[in-house]
Amino acid sequence: MSPDNQFLRSGCPIVNGLDVFGDKWTLVILRDLLCGKETYSELADSPEKIPTNRLAERLKMLEAEGILVREQYQSKPKRYKYLLTQKGKDVLPILQAIAKWGNTYFEGSWIPPKWFMET
Amino acid sequence: MSPDNQFLRSGCPIVNGLDVFGDKWTLVILRDLLCGKETYSELADSPEKIPTNRLAERLKMLEAEGILVREQYQSKPKRYKYLLTQKGKDVLPILQAIAKWGNTYFEGSWIPPKWFMET
Repeated sequence: MSPDNQFLRSGCPIVNGLDVFGDKWTLVILRDLLCGKETYSELADSPEKIPTNRLAERLKMLEAEGILVREQYQSKPKRYKYLLTQKGKDVLPILQAIAKWGNTYFEGSWIPPKWFMET
Repeated sequence: MSPDNQFLRSGCPIVNGLDVFGDKWTLVILRDLLCGKETYSELADSPEKIPTNRLAERLKMLEAEGILVREQYQSKPKRYKYLLTQKGKDVLPILQAIAKWGNTYFEGSWIPPKWFMET
């Protein structure tokens, strides 16, 4: 058995990353969590208006990947906060690099706050 | 008309980037081009075995986005090289950040060559 068999497509660390967040929404959710959003309704309320089934599915996946943990903050009805683990917080440099590229090549794109780009 | 109407989802530079390469394959193709691959068959031959219809579609999209240019190098039959523009070369820091995260969190993932990580 090749040592790469543990991986979905290959042992390339870029590919391994994309197997987790290579889609149009996951990194948007991580952006919001890094910006301090914590609840389902805060996440659903972003300007991009993520479809709620996508949001629910991605939050479940991110929890399974150890990128966030779910913490109940209300019991009736049950409500949860979504908190980034270190693995989740460590996605920030990826988002910073994408934001830098986006600001260079998409004229009129929003300039992220300084704390986001320089943390 | 809001100034954001020019964008697909929002003016967020992260979202703008993901609207281009937010999928499982586009950044894998850019990885290969940054590593010196130039032809369709070289790109199709990577360990991840991208389906050829996906490869053709992504190359067309990347050309339309100004991320690569196509250059004919043979006329019978017609064959093309795919060369990164500056916009394409500037994706490298994004790949470096993903590779760093991947190497941290996917045990046994390949360590990219030093020139790739430090350029």
